[in-house]
Amino acid sequence: MSERIKVAVIGATGYTGGELVRLLLHHPMVDITAVLRLSSEESLSLEQAHPHLTGLTSLQCVPYQPDHLKGVQVTFLCVPNGVAMDIARSLLEQGIKVVDLSADFRFHEPEVYERVYRQPHRSPELLRKAVYGLPELHRNEIANASLIANPGCYPISVLIALAPLAKRRLIGPDIIVDSKSGVSGAGRSRLEVGYLFTELFGDFRAYNPGNHRHTPEMIQELTPLFQQTPKLTFTPHLIPISRGILSTIYCHLNEPLTEDEIRNLYQTDYGDEPFVHLLPPGQLPRVKAIAGTNFCHISFARDRFSETLIILSALDNLTKGAAGNAIQCFNLLMGLDERMGLLLPGLMP
Amino acid sequence: MSERIKVAVIGATGYTGGELVRLLLHHPMVDITAVLRLSSEESLSLEQAHPHLTGLTSLQCVPYQPDHLKGVQVTFLCVPNGVAMDIARSLLEQGIKVVDLSADFRFHEPEVYERVYRQPHRSPELLRKAVYGLPELHRNEIANASLIANPGCYPISVLIALAPLAKRRLIGPDIIVDSKSGVSGAGRSRLEVGYLFTELFGDFRAYNPGNHRHTPEMIQELTPLFQQTPKLTFTPHLIPISRGILSTIYCHLNEPLTEDEIRNLYQTDYGDEPFVHLLPPGQLPRVKAIAGTNFCHISFARDRFSETLIILSALDNLTKGAAGNAIQCFNLLMGLDERMGLLLPGLMP
Amino acid sequence: MSERIKVAVIGATGYTGGELVRLLLHHPMVDITAVLRLSSEESLSLEQAHPHLTGLTSLQCVPYQPDHLKGVQVTFLCVPNGVAMDIARSLLEQGIKVVDLSADFRFHEPEVYERVYRQPHRSPELLRKAVYGLPELHRNEIANASLIANPGCYPISVLIALAPLAKRRLIGPDIIVDSKSGVSGAGRSRLEVGYLFTELFGDFRAYNPGNHRHTPEMIQELTPLFQQTPKLTFTPHLIPISRGILSTIYCHLNEPLTEDEIRNLYQTDYGDEPFVHLLPPGQLPRVKAIAGTNFCHISFARDRFSETLIILSALDNLTKGAAGNAIQCFNLLMGLDERMGLLLPGLMP
Amino acid sequence: MSERIKVAVIGATGYTGGELVRLLLHHPMVDITAVLRLSSEESLSLEQAHPHLTGLTSLQCVPYQPDHLKGVQVTFLCVPNGVAMDIARSLLEQGIKVVDLSADFRFHEPEVYERVYRQPHRSPELLRKAVYGLPELHRNEIANASLIANPGCYPISVLIALAPLAKRRLIGPDIIVDSKSGVSGAGRSRLEVGYLFTELFGDFRAYNPGNHRHTPEMIQELTPLFQQTPKLTFTPHLIPISRGILSTIYCHLNEPLTEDEIRNLYQTDYGDEPFVHLLPPGQLPRVKAIAGTNFCHISFARDRFSETLIILSALDNLTKGAAGNAIQCFNLLMGLDERMGLLLPGLMP
Repeated sequence: MSERIKVAVIGATGYTGGELVRLLLHHPMVDITAVLRLSSEESLSLEQAHPHLTGLTSLQCVPYQPDHLKGVQVTFLCVPNGVAMDIARSLLEQGIKVVDLSADFRFHEPEVYERVYRQPHRSPELLRKAVYGLPELHRNEIANASLIANPGCYPISVLIALAPLAKRRLIGPDIIVDSKSGVSGAGRSRLEVGYLFTELFGDFRAYNPGNHRHTPEMIQELTPLFQQTPKLTFTPHLIPISRGILSTIYCHLNEPLTEDEIRNLYQTDYGDEPFVHLLPPGQLPRVKAIAGTNFCHISFARDRFSETLIILSALDNLTKGAAGNAIQCFNLLMGLDERMGLLLPGLMP
Repeated sequence: MSERIKVAVIGATGYTGGELVRLLLHHPMVDITAVLRLSSEESLSLEQAHPHLTGLTSLQCVPYQPDHLKGVQVTFLCVPNGVAMDIARSLLEQGIKVVDLSADFRFHEPEVYERVYRQPHRSPELLRKAVYGLPELHRNEIANASLIANPGCYPISVLIALAPLAKRRLIGPDIIVDSKSGVSGAGRSRLEVGYLFTELFGDFRAYNPGNHRHTPEMIQELTPLFQQTPKLTFTPHLIPISRGILSTIYCHLNEPLTEDEIRNLYQTDYGDEPFVHLLPPGQLPRVKAIAGTNFCHISFARDRFSETLIILSALDNLTKGAAGNAIQCFNLLMGLDERMGLLLPGLMP
Repeated sequence: MSERIKVAVIGATGYTGGELVRLLLHHPMVDITAVLRLSSEESLSLEQAHPHLTGLTSLQCVPYQPDHLKGVQVTFLCVPNGVAMDIARSLLEQGIKVVDLSADFRFHEPEVYERVYRQPHRSPELLRKAVYGLPELHRNEIANASLIANPGCYPISVLIALAPLAKRRLIGPDIIVDSKSGVSGAGRSRLEVGYLFTELFGDFRAYNPGNHRHTPEMIQELTPLFQQTPKLTFTPHLIPISRGILSTIYCHLNEPLTEDEIRNLYQTDYGDEPFVHLLPPGQLPRVKAIAGTNFCHISFARDRFSETLIILSALDNLTKGAAGNAIQCFNLLMGLDERMGLLLPGLMP
Repeated sequence: MSERIKVAVIGATGYTGGELVRLLLHHPMVDITAVLRLSSEESLSLEQAHPHLTGLTSLQCVPYQPDHLKGVQVTFLCVPNGVAMDIARSLLEQGIKVVDLSADFRFHEPEVYERVYRQPHRSPELLRKAVYGLPELHRNEIANASLIANPGCYPISVLIALAPLAKRRLIGPDIIVDSKSGVSGAGRSRLEVGYLFTELFGDFRAYNPGNHRHTPEMIQELTPLFQQTPKLTFTPHLIPISRGILSTIYCHLNEPLTEDEIRNLYQTDYGDEPFVHLLPPGQLPRVKAIAGTNFCHISFARDRFSETLIILSALDNLTKGAAGNAIQCFNLLMGLDERMGLLLPGLMP
């Protein structure tokens, strides 16, 4: 058995960082060398930050100092947008590969980043180097990258669902995406009244309808598939649960296809994908079935009145939508079996 | 003060029946004379069926016998589809007005009913008599009716949202409706594994995508507004909460309208509506804010990438979506103030 | 019909204040003259603070100025502990009666207050004047008071449950109280990670076991009933719901009593109480059945192995446990029917 | 590496069976040879019965036939009480070891079983052979057994919490146990109105207060520790979540012990236990932290008013409270590392 790979995690006390550590602790080829916080923060044991890891780790989350990274081959960044861009440059200069879970390297053009995230990009030269880390679309580039931009959670659910039809131009570029996400997508540091238990319990609401930062990200990735800029409409909603995204996607077929033909296309593209499951006829995605896993469940239906094609796509925003996908990229990056450490079952009921 | 109106409720042990009784007990002009079950069922106190009414009523829910209806002026039917059609005919023959909360009288054409609900219609002659009980669209007909077909919960949320634009033909007839409903919409007698607490807790899923019985109901009501048959796509979803529907509706403007112009149209149509609120700019509907009330909250946004118009509409499926709307119709029917008994506040948090 | 009573509410943007306004708006003899915030805070419409009141009020919540209280007969205080003691004194000097929902006037002895709430009491002379506002124990004193100390939510659930047995010394003074509360008990301004939706969803935990500020309050009120200081053990827990308390109380009978005898005692004491219901044999309190109401549901059982008496008591921490009880006191204070404005049904499902 | 152990599971479509399969699939030394249903039931793929296992198994759950068990060394029974007693006898006669998750072999005396479970015991001779499968109390007997009676979920949470103090007779035998459980404890086949999502959402209630079948089980196991029959009072409650039990236990110390002394006792007994964690001072058990894991979290506090000792104990009713504990017994039975396959982390948030 070959040697374990030394990795570091920067920013491990939030929800994405906690999920990443949960999975990495379980990864047979990973040795977590350092778990770091920004230098302005205090030390904290991982057990304290993440009570579900009690008894599974004695790692301390300590303020970042350069020598913590000695021997580290890959670093995962779970830091805020705008912070990752500086750290990544420094790490790459030290020869450390970077899997960035922020939005800092997702756009090819610094102008787009600056317009969407409303801050200047201080490492624009790295955008060309960065690979958009969606294995189902960019497996080979990921394997050869040194900087991975892990995609947004909503885009992953939508891109996987649309790619087989979009890249064959079997659907028109007018797409409606109605997504619903568990509240963990808002993170752990959003101490606002609107995220209190009492406010969300029994509630359901949209947020940022028609104006979310993931829309331009989806447009960027769909454009080469459609070979034109799609006209994408996107509304996210908050489900009063912790984890899971369901995206309901509406589009129109350019030519008459039977359900079997559509099914075969997905089968062709995803039959060998380890984490994408086209559900059998009659079964629909449930977010509970994928919570805590790296799987994306897909199904589709034709509206019997309008003929619109309805595609349903479910994943866990913290796992396949963030930390799990990041480890999938890491596995590719390091030449490991892509599934390694990622076949943990979810929890039901 | 004039005399109270004697009413009966048939089928009061389910969720819609319970909500109806809760509101009627509070109605200053109503005297509930009889609460009935189908004759095959046993007597049950309302307190036992509905523990939240403990101490508020001593009514018994007893098996239906014709003489229970002596002196009754209006009867509300909360019985299964297919059962209401027979009871209604018998009641009307006795000169009793009927507000039917089932689907039996919602369609103008018996053929449509039979296709959608997969059973023959045994009182087709009443379909012409029945008025579709949506006050915001049919206030005058309701006031003069003897048989009210209370609409489906999803259609109410959608019709109120679309009417101002549809009837002025300011939007195209291609409409996507993505609705999310609390679980009480499934009723109380659905004793299936899929409706157990453990199955729905932490879950979110679509059901019957593109193939729900409310689609033809919406098409029927939208057709005269659009003056053509709209191409409606509809997907309902289950939110793991008890009460409340949020419909997210996507459509395209036929001509460029500013947000203020759109806002003014809604204001024109709904400024005097007692139960429809267009929320102020920047505020979005929350199902929690309307749970337990007869209000429908509306807002809209333009997608900044695609220009699609996104309309959001929230109501409580058991109140404005069922029992509350039925009482609103009843008030109109009896010449009462439309708001009577319906201004109960909801509960937050 | 006599004239409406002018009341003010100070502190209306939190959960207790919101519940109070919800109920007062519905009270047929109340005119809310002013809704005030502390002078350091900004104006806010009640609709904005409490979206469930949309369309039911146009009141503004404005920073406190003395002339806002012109003509006001009664003021409700929903301000933090330590703030109420100063405002109350000033109001009483102006001849305005005060119903205080904070803890500032619940203790008879300033030393106890200071030990429990860890701050000096600046109006100790008012403690003698204040009446502990639990109608079921102190109805006459409340009717003649000018300053009402509205009790804590847990104590109300426990005192009502124990009083019939304690005051007849039928149970021993060793009492175990295991209470469970919805999260709204923590208030709306507790912006801590532990109260985020994501942290509490799917969780259940105790807090402050054996060390809660409501224990000495219960001991104070139980001592005259037991005619000795009870040995009370109290553990509160957080239920992942918004509203409702269930207290499970364990005690020992001093003499053998049959279930019927116990039942009769409760019936004797509470048969005429408008808001206390001893449930019929075989029925157990459910917090959902009392959520949003001013009712307290009680039942009891004997453990068949240990003979311990188990009393179950359920109420809504914001209603009978706070705002509803305060209005019940207000009704007594003003010589109104005690039930006025308080017979709103709850919501099920 | 030695050969994998062939095991069968009978009754795999319920929640306990699903949890067992989830864990066994992940066990490095287990080969699931057969997944069986009662012979009256139909075949079903495990993926269909348990959507969270999609993509992780192709096993079919088929009607039981004797030859399915060829080569099987150990069989897990997840069948109803009263059914296990017959199957177990037949399996043991074939030389197959049995881990029974029903209640059929938990009592030493057939009379107690018959009184508590209200049915005759048809294999009373096996009761002497059966070992009560709580490793923390009976590790050695389990290792040498052929028939394991996996304990009830509530008893596990209580016995682990009390054993260190009870067996040293440091506490008196008057014990109050107030337990709260997620709804999965009710199983998947309880198709009753009371277990519908809509009924339990937002609710909290006790059930069977003072009269639960787990009380005599706890008494049986505590009696040898206390060396007398304890006077146990037990009330279970339903938490509106899926998984997890919190038991709040009240008892009295026989002699004055400091918190450190108590802590040391637990440390002595459980310092080396792989699945029991005494939480550090200031930390309290949260069911969410142990959901999906085989861990039991313990903490304690003294009531500062009554000196009562309050012990808090949390575990997942399906894992350490059922399937996980069963696999822990299996590991002991087969001479494997007790932790094997059981160190899966839980999910937070």
